[in-house]
Amino acid sequence: MLTLYHHPFSPSSRFVRLALTEYGADFQLVSVNPWERPEELLSRNAAGAVPVLVENDGPSICGPAPIMEYLDETRGYAVADRRLMPDHPEARAETRRLVEWSLGKLDQEVVGLLVRERIYKQAMPRSAGGGAPDSNALRVARANIQHHLKYFGYLVASRRWLAGERLSFADFALAAEVSCADYLGEVPWATEENVKNWYARMKSRPSMRPLLSEKVLGMTAAPTYADLDF
Amino acid sequence: MLTLYHHPFSPSSRFVRLALTEYGADFQLVSVNPWERPEELLSRNAAGAVPVLVENDGPSICGPAPIMEYLDETRGYAVADRRLMPDHPEARAETRRLVEWSLGKLDQEVVGLLVRERIYKQAMPRSAGGGAPDSNALRVARANIQHHLKYFGYLVASRRWLAGERLSFADFALAAEVSCADYLGEVPWATEENVKNWYARMKSRPSMRPLLSEKVLGMTAAPTYADLDF
Repeated sequence: MLTLYHHPFSPSSRFVRLALTEYGADFQLVSVNPWERPEELLSRNAAGAVPVLVENDGPSICGPAPIMEYLDETRGYAVADRRLMPDHPEARAETRRLVEWSLGKLDQEVVGLLVRERIYKQAMPRSAGGGAPDSNALRVARANIQHHLKYFGYLVASRRWLAGERLSFADFALAAEVSCADYLGEVPWATEENVKNWYARMKSRPSMRPLLSEKVLGMTAAPTYADLDF
Repeated sequence: MLTLYHHPFSPSSRFVRLALTEYGADFQLVSVNPWERPEELLSRNAAGAVPVLVENDGPSICGPAPIMEYLDETRGYAVADRRLMPDHPEARAETRRLVEWSLGKLDQEVVGLLVRERIYKQAMPRSAGGGAPDSNALRVARANIQHHLKYFGYLVASRRWLAGERLSFADFALAAEVSCADYLGEVPWATEENVKNWYARMKSRPSMRPLLSEKVLGMTAAPTYADLDF
């Protein structure tokens, strides 16, 4: 049995949930607030971050990229043509580059800021940095999202999927990030037709459903969030 | 032939140079200042960041982790027992976790701040953000380095190498970061005996030599930097 320590609105955690579901893995979820630094999380991951995956009584697999590789190394063969990591080293590098772009750069410059300011800080006590969103951080995120979507739009217009002709981990990394921004109504869909068409294809996958039914306490999702025909 | 676009004091670039050398790969170096956003770099990597590896006329392999995986996938078999990625999926996950810790967390919270404030900003024009170091950023980095070294010291005291019983990519990721901080005299060696003993072993590797002979224009290295018996 696999256990995933996650937060429902951590984009990296969402990425791992999507990947686990696509690989047909049975898993149980343990929801944690990383900012509370719970003992069980710290003992599993000294970095105090989610996602952390544990298989049976095995050691912790920490972080989205190590979990992605672990999942592919232990189960990739079994899922055959539904594998989300390509075979060729160059194609693998392109997949990894775009996974890192989404979970790293896009997260740091856009989605991580939005989630922290608008979701996490609502749940955090003032003593831990909670409170009203920092309007400067939101302004930065909203300016940055344009550039990222333009680049991703260019990629999905010139390829069938984000990293090439086949669906890959890169698509799920971006979908995980976009889903969090979309919950908050922060995705300018009107100006990004290509990304919108790609995301409509992603949303129709059964693995997305559990994510799209989740809510933040006291905050309604944007109308586009769960709508497959947004 | 492999070409590496790098910056001599980018820790991630140093990590890749160490890995290439350890794997016995012939490579040429192209030094770039990423903040100048040169056309050739942007056309190779839309993120505008180093390191970027190009093999012959192949596509760009962007970022330290994708390059590490590419190198191991294309040459790991040939280096046999000098391979820096373990065989077992759990051991691979531990190696990747610690590579990410060094090049991600340690870089963002410590070494990246030091390098940007004390090296990059000297070379940047004022219009691009150059100038005197931000003393607040330096203070944060100097406080954070203690916690990181304590954790790494704990690991190397309980294991032969950073990620386990065998030398791995994790050791070179940390050595790359430490070498940049050490150039600047920012490593509190006196209080971190375990890390010091581990780094002395790393420094004695021939792959480290080219790095330890490099200098920043107008800035002398700290006395410990190139000294094998520091």
